Amino acid sequence: MNFDYSEKIIDLQERLTSFFDTHILPVEREVNEFLYHPDNLWKPWPGMESLKQKAKEEGLWNLFLPKAYGDLSPGLSNLEYAPLAEIMGRILWSSEIFNCSAPDTGNMEVLAKYGSKDQQKQWLAPLLNGDVRSAFLMTEPQVASSDATNIETSIVSDGNDYVINGRKWWSSGGMNPNCKIAIVMGKTDPQAPRHQQQSMVLVPMNSPGLKIIRPLSVFGFYDSPEGHAEILLENVRVPKENLILGEGRGFEIAQGRLGPGRIHHCMRLIGMAQRSLELMSKRASERIAFGKTFKDYSSIRQEIAKSQCDIEQARLLTLSAADKMDKFGNKLSKDLIAMIKVVAPKMALKVIDRAMQIHGGKGVGPDTPLAHFFVAARMLRLADGPDEVHMYQLGKSIIKKYAE
Amino acid sequence: MNFDYSEKIIDLQERLTSFFDTHILPVEREVNEFLYHPDNLWKPWPGMESLKQKAKEEGLWNLFLPKAYGDLSPGLSNLEYAPLAEIMGRILWSSEIFNCSAPDTGNMEVLAKYGSKDQQKQWLAPLLNGDVRSAFLMTEPQVASSDATNIETSIVSDGNDYVINGRKWWSSGGMNPNCKIAIVMGKTDPQAPRHQQQSMVLVPMNSPGLKIIRPLSVFGFYDSPEGHAEILLENVRVPKENLILGEGRGFEIAQGRLGPGRIHHCMRLIGMAQRSLELMSKRASERIAFGKTFKDYSSIRQEIAKSQCDIEQARLLTLSAADKMDKFGNKLSKDLIAMIKVVAPKMALKVIDRAMQIHGGKGVGPDTPLAHFFVAARMLRLADGPDEVHMYQLGKSIIKKYAE
Amino acid sequence: MNFDYSEKIIDLQERLTSFFDTHILPVEREVNEFLYHPDNLWKPWPGMESLKQKAKEEGLWNLFLPKAYGDLSPGLSNLEYAPLAEIMGRILWSSEIFNCSAPDTGNMEVLAKYGSKDQQKQWLAPLLNGDVRSAFLMTEPQVASSDATNIETSIVSDGNDYVINGRKWWSSGGMNPNCKIAIVMGKTDPQAPRHQQQSMVLVPMNSPGLKIIRPLSVFGFYDSPEGHAEILLENVRVPKENLILGEGRGFEIAQGRLGPGRIHHCMRLIGMAQRSLELMSKRASERIAFGKTFKDYSSIRQEIAKSQCDIEQARLLTLSAADKMDKFGNKLSKDLIAMIKVVAPKMALKVIDRAMQIHGGKGVGPDTPLAHFFVAARMLRLADGPDEVHMYQLGKSIIKKYAE
Amino acid sequence: MNFDYSEKIIDLQERLTSFFDTHILPVEREVNEFLYHPDNLWKPWPGMESLKQKAKEEGLWNLFLPKAYGDLSPGLSNLEYAPLAEIMGRILWSSEIFNCSAPDTGNMEVLAKYGSKDQQKQWLAPLLNGDVRSAFLMTEPQVASSDATNIETSIVSDGNDYVINGRKWWSSGGMNPNCKIAIVMGKTDPQAPRHQQQSMVLVPMNSPGLKIIRPLSVFGFYDSPEGHAEILLENVRVPKENLILGEGRGFEIAQGRLGPGRIHHCMRLIGMAQRSLELMSKRASERIAFGKTFKDYSSIRQEIAKSQCDIEQARLLTLSAADKMDKFGNKLSKDLIAMIKVVAPKMALKVIDRAMQIHGGKGVGPDTPLAHFFVAARMLRLADGPDEVHMYQLGKSIIKKYAE
Repeated sequence: MNFDYSEKIIDLQERLTSFFDTHILPVEREVNEFLYHPDNLWKPWPGMESLKQKAKEEGLWNLFLPKAYGDLSPGLSNLEYAPLAEIMGRILWSSEIFNCSAPDTGNMEVLAKYGSKDQQKQWLAPLLNGDVRSAFLMTEPQVASSDATNIETSIVSDGNDYVINGRKWWSSGGMNPNCKIAIVMGKTDPQAPRHQQQSMVLVPMNSPGLKIIRPLSVFGFYDSPEGHAEILLENVRVPKENLILGEGRGFEIAQGRLGPGRIHHCMRLIGMAQRSLELMSKRASERIAFGKTFKDYSSIRQEIAKSQCDIEQARLLTLSAADKMDKFGNKLSKDLIAMIKVVAPKMALKVIDRAMQIHGGKGVGPDTPLAHFFVAARMLRLADGPDEVHMYQLGKSIIKKYAE
Repeated sequence: MNFDYSEKIIDLQERLTSFFDTHILPVEREVNEFLYHPDNLWKPWPGMESLKQKAKEEGLWNLFLPKAYGDLSPGLSNLEYAPLAEIMGRILWSSEIFNCSAPDTGNMEVLAKYGSKDQQKQWLAPLLNGDVRSAFLMTEPQVASSDATNIETSIVSDGNDYVINGRKWWSSGGMNPNCKIAIVMGKTDPQAPRHQQQSMVLVPMNSPGLKIIRPLSVFGFYDSPEGHAEILLENVRVPKENLILGEGRGFEIAQGRLGPGRIHHCMRLIGMAQRSLELMSKRASERIAFGKTFKDYSSIRQEIAKSQCDIEQARLLTLSAADKMDKFGNKLSKDLIAMIKVVAPKMALKVIDRAMQIHGGKGVGPDTPLAHFFVAARMLRLADGPDEVHMYQLGKSIIKKYAE
Repeated sequence: MNFDYSEKIIDLQERLTSFFDTHILPVEREVNEFLYHPDNLWKPWPGMESLKQKAKEEGLWNLFLPKAYGDLSPGLSNLEYAPLAEIMGRILWSSEIFNCSAPDTGNMEVLAKYGSKDQQKQWLAPLLNGDVRSAFLMTEPQVASSDATNIETSIVSDGNDYVINGRKWWSSGGMNPNCKIAIVMGKTDPQAPRHQQQSMVLVPMNSPGLKIIRPLSVFGFYDSPEGHAEILLENVRVPKENLILGEGRGFEIAQGRLGPGRIHHCMRLIGMAQRSLELMSKRASERIAFGKTFKDYSSIRQEIAKSQCDIEQARLLTLSAADKMDKFGNKLSKDLIAMIKVVAPKMALKVIDRAMQIHGGKGVGPDTPLAHFFVAARMLRLADGPDEVHMYQLGKSIIKKYAE
Repeated sequence: MNFDYSEKIIDLQERLTSFFDTHILPVEREVNEFLYHPDNLWKPWPGMESLKQKAKEEGLWNLFLPKAYGDLSPGLSNLEYAPLAEIMGRILWSSEIFNCSAPDTGNMEVLAKYGSKDQQKQWLAPLLNGDVRSAFLMTEPQVASSDATNIETSIVSDGNDYVINGRKWWSSGGMNPNCKIAIVMGKTDPQAPRHQQQSMVLVPMNSPGLKIIRPLSVFGFYDSPEGHAEILLENVRVPKENLILGEGRGFEIAQGRLGPGRIHHCMRLIGMAQRSLELMSKRASERIAFGKTFKDYSSIRQEIAKSQCDIEQARLLTLSAADKMDKFGNKLSKDLIAMIKVVAPKMALKVIDRAMQIHGGKGVGPDTPLAHFFVAARMLRLADGPDEVHMYQLGKSIIKKYAE
């Protein structure tokens, strides 16, 4: 492993940090007040588009995309993107400014990697340009969807069309008025071998029969304007050209989609934890109780010391996973990717929780990013597969490795 | 310790459980949908008053109150009330139905114990009758309020009045349109000995100069219709008759107020945890992944086994604290009360978190009580003093006990 | 539950405590130095017999035995014995003084409950009198013995004899020169239904063919003079009269044997933890580093506060299990017994570990009981079934209870 | 950070691993049986010297030493040595074979860095050659020695001599019959500024007045033949030439000594944890209970998955600390060194404990390295400063960094 950053990356880190300090941090409070206000549900913050424009102009755009697309992306490796994703993790709504927010990133990667020319023209181009947003419809309420073979949504061939029926939820981004396209995972052939039953199709959000049932809150947050939608698909009809890659290849696409996404999630979690550590350090140096500043209590120093240890370890592990993915690909890195997926959310939860506690009532309220960080991190112990599923596979793989 | 319940309590438990099963559980989903809907902020659920009436008629009213008030309360001991509070903990908004919800319970106790005849007539009577709600204004944003000597709100004598200035927050219940009266903690004499500077006064919510700045969200929840208010007090003027007990006795009242309240909080937390355990047991027996029902995974059985161990221990500890309070009073029970205040929220968080994880996405969303339970429990690691403060005192007391 | 102690028990607690203070604590250091000295392996401490005599004279003898045997035991219930076992837990080698040490207690119960008149006369009488010691040969090195159906030792009928072949280990007490009799678990009929294959037979330690292979150390301790023996049984022959209860009833006896034994173990663990808490409190009040006495560090107070919470909860849980066993028997108490078996050793390990840490180097060395406590507690996460087995059964039982 | 190993290191790793497989693992059981046998206390295993000779011949000698000494050491950086120390960690007594065992390594570094020509000739040369062993006399029973200013041993100038009085304990290596020299920390000037009171002197073990009081056991282990000695120094007289570096510079030497030693300790801990993981993986694939192989229990897979995550994170953190020390020196790396000192022992304890549990009774006995690993790791939460001291400094440093 070589984690030394190249000059290009150091430059990008500096420019991204400077963009943050200049354009984002100063409006953080204003944006939060807008987004959290019940009257503004599903309305994007009005200043977002101009910030996106600025980021695009400064070349801080589509940083997540491993392949260069003209001026639209610098084509960074996973290891190169990692420290940039960490910076974006410091404010939950900031990734969009750089067109680097989930689930668009994963969807763009899928289209870039597996999409047909037409699909790329119609959907990848506007996504890469930040003109539209997208959703990914995978999880279903009735079944344990972490076992992808449980998925029940049907995709049935009918002439030149596919007809889709099913119920999806936790479709993040689906409430956004600017969300125009969804990638839907379903079964084209329930009789095929377990991992060849699934397919993915592109479904425009305005398709007849696609009905948004309700937004789901996560803890009490709606995550406006993206939201998490419950969606009913009733005889939704799309042309066969909307199939991605081929029938029965949905599982394969899902696998390919997940690796980089997990690196992104984990690095953002590390950014959240890092910022939480900084916030609690500041708080500890200011607040006084029982005649002593917080920082002089040994227990508070311990919380902070442990947090630093936890963060730095998770950071190194994630970087090493990114490095391995760059060098050996998703498949050979699967154990490491499982490891960071298990480690990073739990680590972040611990650190954020300590920071909340040191902030007292303020820590669970709207005046710090901590409570929302916590909820975002908690969700990531479930999203893209619950910890238990990753450990089940990882444990098996390690036992095999050492028992032989 | 004798935890055997008398026939009277067994009867009350059965009647309360039956009331729950008949009148509350069937409307749980409907009430939640109402309360969580952004359009209904600060509106009480319309069916609440008729449920309160029914509870009153059935003698399930003011159960928390250790002293009998005519027909209005059965006068239970802490140990007798504990199992009833556990039942109420199973649904967050259910305590109000029995006129047993914080902060009214604490406020009513203060008025019953320390209030003047006039204060009791004017404020205790309608509170006991469930006609109005109340708030308790203690915590301040600028200072670590767990150290009560930090409190900055001033209560200045001016002729026949007190003039109050300060900023309070986390004033739970303060957003409720039916909240009519607040007990405010402030300093009447900042030069007096540390624990005689504080006083408590009754301040009607419609007093000129009392301004609700905003509702605070806890994680994303607003806890409508009660809410948690940030309140500005600018030259708020109340007659001297509104002083409770006497100048400089605020700290003493606060101490007396806390013991029973902590028992109530802890027993409700145990109810939350118990219900979470039941929910995850059900889920484990239904859900299937990778060819096995959840309940056949040894790791899931462990989560459930541990939860049962955690709950039962915290329950016994809380009962033993209630028993000791009944027999020896607040002061001699202070170590045990500190112990349950540290133990119960953490225990509940662990159990609820396991239940969420087993529920997958559903566990963090609005369709189970788990996410809201979690937030309520998390807040209780801070409310009424953060864990750290309790452990600081408790540790000192134990060292003293054993080192001598 | 009613945990109030009767006057009889309060009197026994006081007399036992006084015996401890007068006769045991003053020689603790001397005894430890004797027992830990490599030259004294397998030699009982010379003063032991006179202490036993004294305890017997004072009626502090066979306290564990639920049934009264003439003058030899007061016939206490589990709940009554529990606080006495806690006191004995404060010094590892003290139980023997009161003829209350494992595995003799379990063996005596088996003989009292299931033994024939002859077996009782020959073996129970001298055990109750403290004249001899005994061993229990259950666990086998080749198989996971927590699943009793795995056990491989064969007990084959041959004329008027049984012929026994097998290898046992962790036979606690087996190294003691005064150990004269063993109860051996083996299979009389490997073809019978799973839980009727096993039988228990009495095997004198001097039987030809019974060979002590070696003492096993636990961490580095040999636990002299009792020790933990690895024992080979090669064609060991005993008369059929040595069978206990009947062929195929070994599993049934094992079940009956375990309940009270677990209460004893757990209460002793609580005694270990309690003493560790007292020791660390003393240490915290004496030791100084970086200009502050340990007790003034908030982190040390937290360790102590948490320990008190942990101990008191486990104590109440164990008492409630003892109470339930007394009232409803082993079978209906099995969930609670599993719970304490999982809870108490882990709790003790946490508390002892904190105490070790606060003692610095002294804490892991021979000058405090802490290191040996730790090892004893660690072993109890395995002995009588590892935590995992208890949680596996307990989790199943709870899911069943709540999912129906 | 660049953790890619050079060809030289890859070659050394391979040769060291091969030496292990060929010469060490095959005799592991034999050596353990020898060392653990009470009759062999303080006797080196007879085969040790020939293995040392072999290692020296193969250039696997003094690998820890950052500076090349003729043929006697390859002069590796900390980052280069780290993976080799990890390999040595797999068997507790193996470091000596490569002349890489504590406290000799630290003592040799002190002499190499700060020793006079004469001191180096007389003591460094035989140590580097593996002819003699050494001890480091720092900790004292009466005071919290982690605060070096507490140390009470006096070093008083008297003509051409220093006269030393004090009591030391946990002098590891001090019981070894081949231990010939000790470095003693004491105070030459108790009136000097806090960190200039201390000095270090060389004291031959056969000096009149130096009396070994007793060996200390760690848990039950004596760690023969090195042992941990309690030593009384009564008017021990050494010539002034035995002073290292200068009066009042003891603290400075101690600081310089600690950094690399902590890397070594941590990498060995990682080796212990790694081997424990491998052992439990093997066990999980072999053992059967309740009809299932251990590896098919989800809870066991989780234990193994978590262990892999824990180990890999600690490994990366330690490598990054080694790398930083190599590039920026001890002082600028102090936070990272504190971090690994806190992280690695706790991580190892968790992993080893899981491995023990999966091994059942075997895991706490003498037939696996696990119990001894555990004790070694537990001691390292105290040796070279307890966790609490490191976190106290680390927390302070981080708060300062982020609060400014």
